[in-house]
Amino acid sequence: MESPKKLRIALDAMGGDYAPEREVAGAIEALRLIPDQFEVILVGDEKSIRQQLEKQNVHHLPLSVVHASQVITMEDSPTAALKHKKDSSVAVGMRLHHEGHADACVSAGNTGAVLSAATLILGRIKNVSRPTIGTFIPAEHGSCLLVDAGANVDCRAQQLYEFAVMGSIYVQLLKKKDRPAIGLLNVGEEKSKGSEAAQEAHKLLSESAYQFIGNVEGGDILKSKADVVVCDGFVGNIVLKFAESVPSFLKGRLKKFSARSVMNKLAVGLSLWPLKAALHDMDPNIEGGVPVLGVNGVAIIGHGSSTVLGIRNMILRAAEVAQSQVNRQIEAALAEKGI
Amino acid sequence: MESPKKLRIALDAMGGDYAPEREVAGAIEALRLIPDQFEVILVGDEKSIRQQLEKQNVHHLPLSVVHASQVITMEDSPTAALKHKKDSSVAVGMRLHHEGHADACVSAGNTGAVLSAATLILGRIKNVSRPTIGTFIPAEHGSCLLVDAGANVDCRAQQLYEFAVMGSIYVQLLKKKDRPAIGLLNVGEEKSKGSEAAQEAHKLLSESAYQFIGNVEGGDILKSKADVVVCDGFVGNIVLKFAESVPSFLKGRLKKFSARSVMNKLAVGLSLWPLKAALHDMDPNIEGGVPVLGVNGVAIIGHGSSTVLGIRNMILRAAEVAQSQVNRQIEAALAEKGI
Repeated sequence: MESPKKLRIALDAMGGDYAPEREVAGAIEALRLIPDQFEVILVGDEKSIRQQLEKQNVHHLPLSVVHASQVITMEDSPTAALKHKKDSSVAVGMRLHHEGHADACVSAGNTGAVLSAATLILGRIKNVSRPTIGTFIPAEHGSCLLVDAGANVDCRAQQLYEFAVMGSIYVQLLKKKDRPAIGLLNVGEEKSKGSEAAQEAHKLLSESAYQFIGNVEGGDILKSKADVVVCDGFVGNIVLKFAESVPSFLKGRLKKFSARSVMNKLAVGLSLWPLKAALHDMDPNIEGGVPVLGVNGVAIIGHGSSTVLGIRNMILRAAEVAQSQVNRQIEAALAEKGI
Repeated sequence: MESPKKLRIALDAMGGDYAPEREVAGAIEALRLIPDQFEVILVGDEKSIRQQLEKQNVHHLPLSVVHASQVITMEDSPTAALKHKKDSSVAVGMRLHHEGHADACVSAGNTGAVLSAATLILGRIKNVSRPTIGTFIPAEHGSCLLVDAGANVDCRAQQLYEFAVMGSIYVQLLKKKDRPAIGLLNVGEEKSKGSEAAQEAHKLLSESAYQFIGNVEGGDILKSKADVVVCDGFVGNIVLKFAESVPSFLKGRLKKFSARSVMNKLAVGLSLWPLKAALHDMDPNIEGGVPVLGVNGVAIIGHGSSTVLGIRNMILRAAEVAQSQVNRQIEAALAEKGI
């Protein structure tokens, strides 16, 4: 019997803040951790990538390089950059995926550019109005998928409904959570709260077959009241960035307190270990990356500052998603809208 | 020479979750801390209030009681409750202020009801489209006034502009901060980001004489990038509630970690002191209360779970605001719109 065909993951090797060094190292770690399951196509400046490969002294790993002459930076405007940099690593990677030479495309680069590339090159799944990005926020029990996390700042009710459906399917399949609880982010529990779009989305979700628990408030996210928290990308982006700023705020406060006396310094020194251990999953590198939901393919976006572990986990996540039924289920679910 | 007339603070003695016990105790503490400056009018069920006063064995303090037969609870719908409970403690207190028998009205009760009572009974300052509630979020350096914190979920540009002006004046006068830095909460720094209202507000603020530093993102709040962060009440409420949930999330995480071994328990025990000390100002009782901005009078809202310290500080804050020029400056600033 022939062995099943290996998955091929296209990695934007020029995406992150420390590219291509961490990208190459992360790919190697992923391939060493789970051998014989997939191969990685490193996309980007061939010379720099080969230099990194030589440094790492790699042999017998299923790694290949596809050259791309341009890079979209974090400062570039996503749509303009995609238009003018046709040969950027993220566009080349996404095209490899679209044309069937890869089963997924992952990038720790400019989030907007990865989203736009995925949307424009892979196209939308049938019945999806707008692709979205979800992100996991560590909460009391496990984590909570906040969707949309910044892709669409202004949303109609139907779009919020679709975010809920796509998020629920992703959490069910990838986090092995049966019937994830969906909450609509709002300013009160009553269904009459919030904007017209929120009220209408509340209605759509109430009438659906999903596990809709109603409105949730800002304080319910960290309490794990819902597995999927739905909002427009304006609110989602602000909440996400606020949440991400909490650890460094805590660190800053402890540092200031520590500077006041030797006794304080000692106390803070002792407190760091339990604090870090208790909050270890707030490190986005553990999740590795977040999916673009609603596109015809698998696109995972990593943090710009991803560590080697982050890149490794982003690749592993992509392999998992590529093997899952996420997109097929999304298409089926949205074909029978609201039922 | 005659001594200047004492300020009179009307306190909704039935407002908070532990009313009237903490209300009465907080009033006594305020009067003992700063004697001869003001008097407190306790508004609410006379019998319960007198019982508390007897318990506390108070003599020679400038305390009086005004009876109100009804109470608006935390579960009441604000507007309906104000309509049907004409003799509620918060409405009676606000009317005392409006009719000149008190110089301020403070309450740790139902936030929406205090806001509505202030708006309906005191009326708006000339040129203010909608009164607003600001709230202080502890940040890296001092704290940041988030305005609107939940009063108006849907806002036009002119309203956002007014929130900025009112917030800036409040911070300047009450926090003694010269030319507070105003940031517009948005999903990116570019002026083209966000909703139409946000873009238009950006323009209004850029053309104003205020210290407008442009858009700020969710991650900039705790970094103290701005002294006043302007947003609509939908976003503001969600950010505020998320922020408020962080300490209990941390506590929960540490508790879980602590339960894993004796060593962990010891480490967490040692970490609590520096952590609490470094974050002591996250206790809303220190600020005491947040102002309703834009009404013809002084209304301060405390947290429902206010401690005695919180009630005390809410009263002291009201006295400060009553002596300030906040409302006069707001009226003057908005008379010369956008200049």
